[in-house]
Amino acid sequence: MQIILLSGGSGMRLWPLSNEIRSKQFLKLLRGPGGTMESMIMRVYRQVYEVSPLARITVATGKKQVSIIRNQLGDKVDICVEPDRRDTFPAICLAASFLADMRKVPQEEPVIICPVDPYVGSSYFNAFVEMAALAAAGGANLTLLGLEPTYPSEKYGYIIPEDGERVSRVAAFQEKPDLATARQYLARGALWNGGVFACRLKYLLEKAHGQMDFKDYWDLYEKYSRQEKVSFDYAVAEREDRIQVFRYKGTWKDLGTWNTLTESMEGHTLGKVILNETCENTHVVNELNVPILCMGCRDMVVAASGDGILVSDKGQSSYIKPFVDRIRQQVMYAEKSWGSFTVLDVQEGSMTIKVELMPGHNLYYHSHEHRDEVWTVAEGQGRVILDGQQRRVGPGDVVSMTAGCKHTVFADTRLKIIEVQLGAEISVEDKVKYEMEPQWKSGGEL
Amino acid sequence: MQIILLSGGSGMRLWPLSNEIRSKQFLKLLRGPGGTMESMIMRVYRQVYEVSPLARITVATGKKQVSIIRNQLGDKVDICVEPDRRDTFPAICLAASFLADMRKVPQEEPVIICPVDPYVGSSYFNAFVEMAALAAAGGANLTLLGLEPTYPSEKYGYIIPEDGERVSRVAAFQEKPDLATARQYLARGALWNGGVFACRLKYLLEKAHGQMDFKDYWDLYEKYSRQEKVSFDYAVAEREDRIQVFRYKGTWKDLGTWNTLTESMEGHTLGKVILNETCENTHVVNELNVPILCMGCRDMVVAASGDGILVSDKGQSSYIKPFVDRIRQQVMYAEKSWGSFTVLDVQEGSMTIKVELMPGHNLYYHSHEHRDEVWTVAEGQGRVILDGQQRRVGPGDVVSMTAGCKHTVFADTRLKIIEVQLGAEISVEDKVKYEMEPQWKSGGEL
Repeated sequence: MQIILLSGGSGMRLWPLSNEIRSKQFLKLLRGPGGTMESMIMRVYRQVYEVSPLARITVATGKKQVSIIRNQLGDKVDICVEPDRRDTFPAICLAASFLADMRKVPQEEPVIICPVDPYVGSSYFNAFVEMAALAAAGGANLTLLGLEPTYPSEKYGYIIPEDGERVSRVAAFQEKPDLATARQYLARGALWNGGVFACRLKYLLEKAHGQMDFKDYWDLYEKYSRQEKVSFDYAVAEREDRIQVFRYKGTWKDLGTWNTLTESMEGHTLGKVILNETCENTHVVNELNVPILCMGCRDMVVAASGDGILVSDKGQSSYIKPFVDRIRQQVMYAEKSWGSFTVLDVQEGSMTIKVELMPGHNLYYHSHEHRDEVWTVAEGQGRVILDGQQRRVGPGDVVSMTAGCKHTVFADTRLKIIEVQLGAEISVEDKVKYEMEPQWKSGGEL
Repeated sequence: MQIILLSGGSGMRLWPLSNEIRSKQFLKLLRGPGGTMESMIMRVYRQVYEVSPLARITVATGKKQVSIIRNQLGDKVDICVEPDRRDTFPAICLAASFLADMRKVPQEEPVIICPVDPYVGSSYFNAFVEMAALAAAGGANLTLLGLEPTYPSEKYGYIIPEDGERVSRVAAFQEKPDLATARQYLARGALWNGGVFACRLKYLLEKAHGQMDFKDYWDLYEKYSRQEKVSFDYAVAEREDRIQVFRYKGTWKDLGTWNTLTESMEGHTLGKVILNETCENTHVVNELNVPILCMGCRDMVVAASGDGILVSDKGQSSYIKPFVDRIRQQVMYAEKSWGSFTVLDVQEGSMTIKVELMPGHNLYYHSHEHRDEVWTVAEGQGRVILDGQQRRVGPGDVVSMTAGCKHTVFADTRLKIIEVQLGAEISVEDKVKYEMEPQWKSGGEL
């Protein structure tokens, strides 16, 4: 069984924890096994393998998320990188071609397509196994997961099944309804459309070639940015006659707003937080290193990160998006494949950043055109490459790089560096990448 | 007219803006002339000189506040530094001896003693002029300022006057009463005791020598830590028979809690703040460089600084003290005589600080026993002295100092430095100061 996890979205609704780079599925707000905190993508990834140790997961995503996915899921997960965001139909076609051409997956093999951010119990992944079997059996071209509604929601699309059986033909799809219509749907036994599809790989490839002109994975990758933005629901599911729905009843939550997310948090606080005894139904998430003191707060959510601070009535927190759109700013914290960076200070003409590398990892070999940089090693041991020359560094060592100097650093242990950037035009865009020499990675001879 | 401004207190009630070093009187939360923000001490200092250009002000305070007073009031203000905090009677006696012995103030000159943190209109300082005239006239030994109460407060001490005249003999002093008693006092024409006293310098010196054994200012300074902690009210005012009260009716506010302070703020926000349209009666003060977004907040105060974040119902904010006592932490921001420092990052074994020097100022010449330091100049021009050797520095220059190295820096322009401290035991106590050579200050020859 192949699973394509669709990882998209910018998740502005969970500002200030989510930002352009760190979408909601990457926020480590859920308690995992052993008490460690995990993100939604980490949770789904773990749950899939708990239920189906032999499943193969491919994450379909955009360039911006590759680093954080590597950081959270490790080096082994397959990532199908979209050169551009073109909605779910092109993304699924690209991932299908990736499986066929890069991974040589047989055309008859069942594929499950699923969003990366539902909060579900493990029975949800048992349903995947059954859906894969249905796809393999071929009684229909496409099998959807239909979620038993718990209330007449206006936020979801609906699937109207032909009958009330566990597996049933789809009579119709319905867009997000108003409340009265949602109530009628529920009375007719309608199900929420959770965006999960099962079919054979062959089916996806046929649909892809049927609607897009391309030869193979590499060709589609090349032509990707010219494809029409269209959803898989619209391009495929709603036009398919041989389609059925698999009824799922169990935990399923869309943790897309602070209001719903806090309901799934274990405990009321994360990070350095003091709630006095007069606080009621208040959740606080603090990623900063200084304490938050809450007194007399009722039905509130407070969230603080390097990007900003949200103080909101829980009901109001759903209306955050237009305000966050107004806050256009520097990303202050990002998890990368090699570790993370935190912006400590922004000034006219300079910026100070904390760079933390995981042992065995390294930055890209790169240079900047318009800024000088000074590194002070605060912790750990590593090797710096400056214009091809290698040098060992440890705590207190300083590395000065003028504009144009090619540089990188290899972390032999966990490495913390304070980087001061200096220049009139400091921008993340100002970066030229270079090939590295293989012996640098291995440590080589000094 | 001499004015002794008493500057004390730690002002934990305005956490996280106030801290050990930055007491409430130093918070720049009030709008001054020309729209610049000013602190309570800056406001009082400005108001005194607007009313009485010839008044002489001496600030009586502890060691910890000297730097921030110089930063906010400049080099010209006289500061009488208490070697230790011993309550108001010893502090006033030390300041009186300072005026007599250091400043050669004539014994007959009137002195006004006043706390540094009332929020008042300028008529309050007109009252000082009249009180000084009363002190000079000698109709009583001591003249108090009595504030016309606006409500039966339980927070203040009361003065019961003999009659309702503008100047009246004092019949009795009363401690902070309960509400019922406060109402009785108001019915009897009682006044709030604002802690303002007028007398001749001679009177203060007599009281000082009467109750403490010392020769002169230098001798009292020497013996200061051995003096009993006692208030001026208790030691002098309540025992004086020839005492009168001057009735003052005008703006007078004690901005000691978030609740009262926010009432005197112009506008509801300071710093980067967005309040959505559903917020009501909410005040937000943000000293951080990232935005605070408030949605659906009612009757709340939100305050954020490098030390922490407060989110409180306004009523609850008065009960902050025990919680702040629990938050024992590093001071993250401090204004010093030479500029300011901001802690950017604290790690095991290292700390990163932004040091900002005002033009023409310099650090003490000092060394550390247990830590190395690395400076990266982010902005400005200056001169570094390392073990007696002078060196010019500008943006991008790096200065590495191992433990024991004597160092300082002179700011020729506004200077910003990122300092990385490295060592197992990083502490503000780890500092040895040295004499500087006079030619360094002047720029000298390189």
